[in-house]
Amino acid sequence: MKQNSSFALKGNVCFSTDKNTLVSREHAYVVCENGKCAGVFSSLPEKFQGIPVRDAGDSLIVPGFADLHLHAPQYSFRGMGMDLELLDWLNSVTFPEESKYSDQEYARKAYSIFAEDLKKSETTRACIFGTLHVEATDILMELLEKTGLKTFVGKVNMDRNGPDTLQEKSAEISAADTIRWLDSCTGKYQNVKPILTPRFIPSCSDELMKKLAEIQKHYKLPVQSHLSENPGEVSWVQELCPESSFYGDAYRQFDLFGGKDCPTIMAHCVYCPEEEIQLMKEQGVYVAHCPQSNTNLSSGIAPVKLYLEQGIHTGLGTDIAGGHSLSMLRAVSDSIQVSKLHWRYIDSNRKPLTFEEAFYIGTMGGGEFFGKTGSFLEGYEFDAVILDDTYFPHPQPLTVRERLERLTYLSDARCVTGKYVSGTEIF
Amino acid sequence: MKQNSSFALKGNVCFSTDKNTLVSREHAYVVCENGKCAGVFSSLPEKFQGIPVRDAGDSLIVPGFADLHLHAPQYSFRGMGMDLELLDWLNSVTFPEESKYSDQEYARKAYSIFAEDLKKSETTRACIFGTLHVEATDILMELLEKTGLKTFVGKVNMDRNGPDTLQEKSAEISAADTIRWLDSCTGKYQNVKPILTPRFIPSCSDELMKKLAEIQKHYKLPVQSHLSENPGEVSWVQELCPESSFYGDAYRQFDLFGGKDCPTIMAHCVYCPEEEIQLMKEQGVYVAHCPQSNTNLSSGIAPVKLYLEQGIHTGLGTDIAGGHSLSMLRAVSDSIQVSKLHWRYIDSNRKPLTFEEAFYIGTMGGGEFFGKTGSFLEGYEFDAVILDDTYFPHPQPLTVRERLERLTYLSDARCVTGKYVSGTEIF
Repeated sequence: MKQNSSFALKGNVCFSTDKNTLVSREHAYVVCENGKCAGVFSSLPEKFQGIPVRDAGDSLIVPGFADLHLHAPQYSFRGMGMDLELLDWLNSVTFPEESKYSDQEYARKAYSIFAEDLKKSETTRACIFGTLHVEATDILMELLEKTGLKTFVGKVNMDRNGPDTLQEKSAEISAADTIRWLDSCTGKYQNVKPILTPRFIPSCSDELMKKLAEIQKHYKLPVQSHLSENPGEVSWVQELCPESSFYGDAYRQFDLFGGKDCPTIMAHCVYCPEEEIQLMKEQGVYVAHCPQSNTNLSSGIAPVKLYLEQGIHTGLGTDIAGGHSLSMLRAVSDSIQVSKLHWRYIDSNRKPLTFEEAFYIGTMGGGEFFGKTGSFLEGYEFDAVILDDTYFPHPQPLTVRERLERLTYLSDARCVTGKYVSGTEIF
Repeated sequence: MKQNSSFALKGNVCFSTDKNTLVSREHAYVVCENGKCAGVFSSLPEKFQGIPVRDAGDSLIVPGFADLHLHAPQYSFRGMGMDLELLDWLNSVTFPEESKYSDQEYARKAYSIFAEDLKKSETTRACIFGTLHVEATDILMELLEKTGLKTFVGKVNMDRNGPDTLQEKSAEISAADTIRWLDSCTGKYQNVKPILTPRFIPSCSDELMKKLAEIQKHYKLPVQSHLSENPGEVSWVQELCPESSFYGDAYRQFDLFGGKDCPTIMAHCVYCPEEEIQLMKEQGVYVAHCPQSNTNLSSGIAPVKLYLEQGIHTGLGTDIAGGHSLSMLRAVSDSIQVSKLHWRYIDSNRKPLTFEEAFYIGTMGGGEFFGKTGSFLEGYEFDAVILDDTYFPHPQPLTVRERLERLTYLSDARCVTGKYVSGTEIF
């Protein structure tokens, strides 16, 4: 990893400026100045003459992608045990695997594979669930720190409805472990920051949620959790929290559902009633749309077009391992695909996502959670990904826009050939 | 390409024996004798001692996949122009590209890319649409012949509702060109055979269909076309053929809808009414299920579980370029994914496809169209694919079955490292 105060990348540059606008510039320069984007130019302006230039040839250069939701410990079983619905899948596949992370040696082995693959992917920023284990979560943070990616990592809280092998013995223990973890990691890392991570309402007692709310305020933490993913889960939450008007209201009652001092990501949001959507909007809650996971776990299709129309913050998540692919380009194409089935079968009043919209939510939409990231507009963090599409020869001339759409559908691990985060070269 | 009368592959062998049974054998031998599978063994039986063995190490060995539906000329624009529905997509993306194949030089350039990629894929057998051009179709057949794959290729018939640049001027010209094509290619190739290919009812006049039925009988040809893909298309067929009771009935009236002497593949079958399904069953029509294309073109989700329950011949198609991926492993995972959404939103009485069922339709189900292919049962054609999954490290031990499921979701072009068709080594 090298950092220069000013440098440029040269190639075919594509980036969103808003949800409907995708800019494509052939053989252009994206300039980085002190970690920030200083603009995209057809030729280097006078003031940047002489800065180092990495020439990406005919490759594409796009902003880094923000993966708003994934579970690091589940990376080991991605693409397996796919014949189950959410709650059965948690009990029979997920919880047994996560239990293994009490073993620090296993955690290091598994998380090393995950961190290495995330580093090589098109993701530059991510919000990541660990497990309930303090030591394993610290190992994960240490490994992620070395990748140079900017991430939020959460030690998971869960004190009810789990198996004996994967449950904190009481709200007190869960809270105490969380404080121990926060005290050990706060300020320790440059790239990795802690995020409060109540697994989801069914896993957290009221008492625990109250304690977590205090911790959130004390440490000024962002929050990540799950919301309205599956009909069975939604009904269960209603039983567990009879006082709540809807699932999101159960988080809100504990002051863990967005607002100025509590930036919050809620994953899935497939079955949000109208009031929940309104509350998400008011509280500035981020939706982490996880199309692949919602399909794999037979959950359904989230109404993302509606969220965009309503101005709700929306990003994409791979949701490893409900989702099987770590690729955010795949998440972009998946989001388009499921939106077409949503239009066909569920809401014919809302057209499918356009390519522009899907690319936007994968970059700028989710990127906003991290500040000004996910675009090459001036002043944005210089997060960039170089994509090589020479594996896909074609007989006819293609525009840069066509090549980007094609790569979004066809790309594989070979295509990501360079990456920068806040101006730092990752590879 | 080398052919030995007897040899074996050694590795982790997986294959279907019926739609509910997937056999997995660690470090086993699959024996080929005169192009046919002679069985799968834990150690080589006495009679095969001394035959050459290709040791695939820890790789997986699976039967070849049958791609029952794809359009070779559309390979050039896969993954592009994805924001349209079927009929608009045909007019604005597909037909203009297919028009270019009047130029033999362009056809050779484009089809060379396609043939090379198909060769490297996990497909061993395929049913392929060309364009209406006789010369270009012959170039396609010549290039495919060299790959060693066993394919059916069709010169497309279309004499109505196309653009000026892509339409045969009359039924007579279309029929005469078809006969010219058939006379030039019949018996010319060892691996490639012709298949009669009326594009779909909206593209073929009644007069043309009558002539094609005569040609089918004279040349004893199999038939491939499209059926009940999109609601707009289905309504249009009803207008065009007011005498028909349903879409399939329009083919049946011209005697081009299955039966003993007319093996027929119908692609899509998303919106088949009950009577159409019954007729498909009676006539032994093959359904080419194209889950990716049906999603990309916002067509919908075909009721594949129902087709399997009804005992209808069912295989998978990539449907390039409604589908963007040439990978049949991707088609298998896509078929599982969409079946989950079908269960969730359309027919809760029919569970999603199991992995076993999806793998079966991708191999044996579609393979049956080509004879005894798609399994390692004794007497089946020796079509085999070697799959390397070392790109996906994992911290825990995995069974062969787990590795196959994972590869089905995660594989990319790097994973296919060997292929055999009827005992001939392709690479």
